[in-house]
Amino acid sequence: MSIQETIKKIAVDAKIAARSMAALSTAKKNRVLESMASGLLAQTAFIQAENQKDLVAGKAKGLSAAMLDRLELSDKVMGAMIDGLRQVIALPDPVGEISDMSRRPSGITVGRMRIPLGVIGMIYESRPNVTVDAASLCLKAGNAIVLRGGSEAIHSNLALAQVLQDALRSEDVDPAVIQVIPTTDRDAVTCMLQMEEQIDLIIPRGGEGLIRFVSENSRIPVLKHYKGVCHVFIDESAKIEMGVNIVNNGKVQRPGVCNALETLLVHEKIAGTFLPAVAENLLAAGVEIRGCKKTCSIIRKAVPATEADWPMEFLELILAVKVVSSLDEAMDHIVAYGSQHTEVIVTENYTNSQRFIREVDASAVMINASTRFADGGEFGLGSEIGISTTKLHAYGPMGLKELTTKKFIVYGDGQVRV
Amino acid sequence: MSIQETIKKIAVDAKIAARSMAALSTAKKNRVLESMASGLLAQTAFIQAENQKDLVAGKAKGLSAAMLDRLELSDKVMGAMIDGLRQVIALPDPVGEISDMSRRPSGITVGRMRIPLGVIGMIYESRPNVTVDAASLCLKAGNAIVLRGGSEAIHSNLALAQVLQDALRSEDVDPAVIQVIPTTDRDAVTCMLQMEEQIDLIIPRGGEGLIRFVSENSRIPVLKHYKGVCHVFIDESAKIEMGVNIVNNGKVQRPGVCNALETLLVHEKIAGTFLPAVAENLLAAGVEIRGCKKTCSIIRKAVPATEADWPMEFLELILAVKVVSSLDEAMDHIVAYGSQHTEVIVTENYTNSQRFIREVDASAVMINASTRFADGGEFGLGSEIGISTTKLHAYGPMGLKELTTKKFIVYGDGQVRV
Repeated sequence: MSIQETIKKIAVDAKIAARSMAALSTAKKNRVLESMASGLLAQTAFIQAENQKDLVAGKAKGLSAAMLDRLELSDKVMGAMIDGLRQVIALPDPVGEISDMSRRPSGITVGRMRIPLGVIGMIYESRPNVTVDAASLCLKAGNAIVLRGGSEAIHSNLALAQVLQDALRSEDVDPAVIQVIPTTDRDAVTCMLQMEEQIDLIIPRGGEGLIRFVSENSRIPVLKHYKGVCHVFIDESAKIEMGVNIVNNGKVQRPGVCNALETLLVHEKIAGTFLPAVAENLLAAGVEIRGCKKTCSIIRKAVPATEADWPMEFLELILAVKVVSSLDEAMDHIVAYGSQHTEVIVTENYTNSQRFIREVDASAVMINASTRFADGGEFGLGSEIGISTTKLHAYGPMGLKELTTKKFIVYGDGQVRV
Repeated sequence: MSIQETIKKIAVDAKIAARSMAALSTAKKNRVLESMASGLLAQTAFIQAENQKDLVAGKAKGLSAAMLDRLELSDKVMGAMIDGLRQVIALPDPVGEISDMSRRPSGITVGRMRIPLGVIGMIYESRPNVTVDAASLCLKAGNAIVLRGGSEAIHSNLALAQVLQDALRSEDVDPAVIQVIPTTDRDAVTCMLQMEEQIDLIIPRGGEGLIRFVSENSRIPVLKHYKGVCHVFIDESAKIEMGVNIVNNGKVQRPGVCNALETLLVHEKIAGTFLPAVAENLLAAGVEIRGCKKTCSIIRKAVPATEADWPMEFLELILAVKVVSSLDEAMDHIVAYGSQHTEVIVTENYTNSQRFIREVDASAVMINASTRFADGGEFGLGSEIGISTTKLHAYGPMGLKELTTKKFIVYGDGQVRV
């Protein structure tokens, strides 16, 4: 079979499997997930042996230590995957939820029923544990999934898929519910992105390059975020210590993730006291401060920022800092350079807090809290399958409900339209 | 300016205008809508004079009587547009609604706030009243709108836009909130569909050709439906008279619309009594019945259906009829030939009613009611801006809420992540 035929068959099989999935009971779905957890435990040696092939090939290819670390299915990672499955079992099943039922003047009763989306296509980079995390969430939400992982993880992903499909078979569920694309050929991705008759949604996870490629080549809707250029605005009335803690946590706790802080905006009336306090803290943690002119005049160890620093997602211990004259200037800066991911105001002023919450257009807008809280788990969604900074369908962290949609249902007793 | 530059400027202006729209109070938006209503009333003579140019050109081009009728802004149509504006004023403002606020274990309070989508692009065919209907709904939901109507209606649409923009100016609102593309050049549509940095959503309304063109050429998400191939399934236990009324209403009341009935499926155990009853009714109304073999053996005046009839949206007094052996066969037929628009079961059997409601994948699934109820007004959405048979973001009739999205909001008092 050509690559195109292979992908077409996978997509068609997934669509057929999705129809059977949609009618599965919660109990059945949970039994499948439980069976997956025991399968992963029982097959750990097999999975790790396959993973070893990827690690050896990765070393030979000269992958960085960080990438090899993300690729490795250590006992700890295996344990986390199995725990993750049990957490998905514990989540309430969103499918079948009926809401907004009301009687209309015509006499019909109209409401909405939550249903699966259908087939989800997941395109991701080297972490093979995404295979299990994404598959389990899609399954719980009643969807079929087509997975395309990074080429470095192909043996690991195929081994994981085999164990997951065995679990599906053991519960008499169509194994085509979970399929890993068995080739590392890049054309497979392009083919996958054309299957708009079969695949309902594409979720890419990885670097900006991957996400732009997917977004530009897909005929299927894509839920994505390119980057997280998150800001904290320290308002004139901010409590100094609270501001210092929130900035420090945002920048230092885990700088390599998308909800880390990248740019600090400080009201000019508080800059003279706030900046020295926060700088002491940040410099001690090894953070490089790239400041505007005013910032550099207050923090002597700051280096001058250039225009290129404002839209930057540093993902390391670098912080851009700008002094602004007002809330409006801060919000204008966010419109100009933000990525609609997460924006924070630190303030004691009620009116400013409410204006910021209402007027800032980002998937998460916060008062007096760290950007690092922008996360499906912290927001109470249970697990998270990704984050969307596009506004259609889902905006922000996506959990189980974001893998479903609602149809209208009507109960009548013979009504016709007049 | 080239067409590309013109469209780019319109889109950029719309994006800037959308930011100011998002912060407008409900009272202000309602004042603008009221001012539009009085403007349309005061400027009726001007609008009808411009409309006359389109009608004269349309007659010269040989447009059909039906198309000329849809193009005409008669006193009655003008009155309906003005009434429509007043109805939009009466609808609750969806923007700013806060839901799902709850305290998380970390101490932060997380919830969701409903916000406008941003800029909506509307592409539609000859009816110029869509200009006012769509603009008013988008405005109430806090969005800017770029309108591209049919070339036959260009004078009417520009006249309407001028009146609407005057109303925006009179309330000190950026007139770029509502813009009609001032050229009939088809390249303008192609350019518009590339403005993914500025336009958040495209809604096409018109024939299948227009919708396919938009869908295939857009880099912006599109909410659409191609066609409505709606079925009624008469189950073994159906009440004969109820079934006859529902079928008759679905097919005869307004055959040219997307929620009209196209295919009747009848359980074989009831076909012998039901089909003669429904046929008498349909034949009296002038409906042509295209039946499967069994149908033709029961209804002598039926003509044999061909394979091409099952996926057909007739939009006229023709009904395809098939006898099936079970609920499952009916649902399989709907999967194979349906368009995920509206599907109806007529039954007295509880289990079958619940299986149909749960298992049929369509934007509206009904028990014992006419397909003709699939409509934003009948479903209680207030006005309707279109219907979606794609599952992302909105599935079924779209009202004001479907022109918005939700962001996450977080209230903290200094929390950081540990």
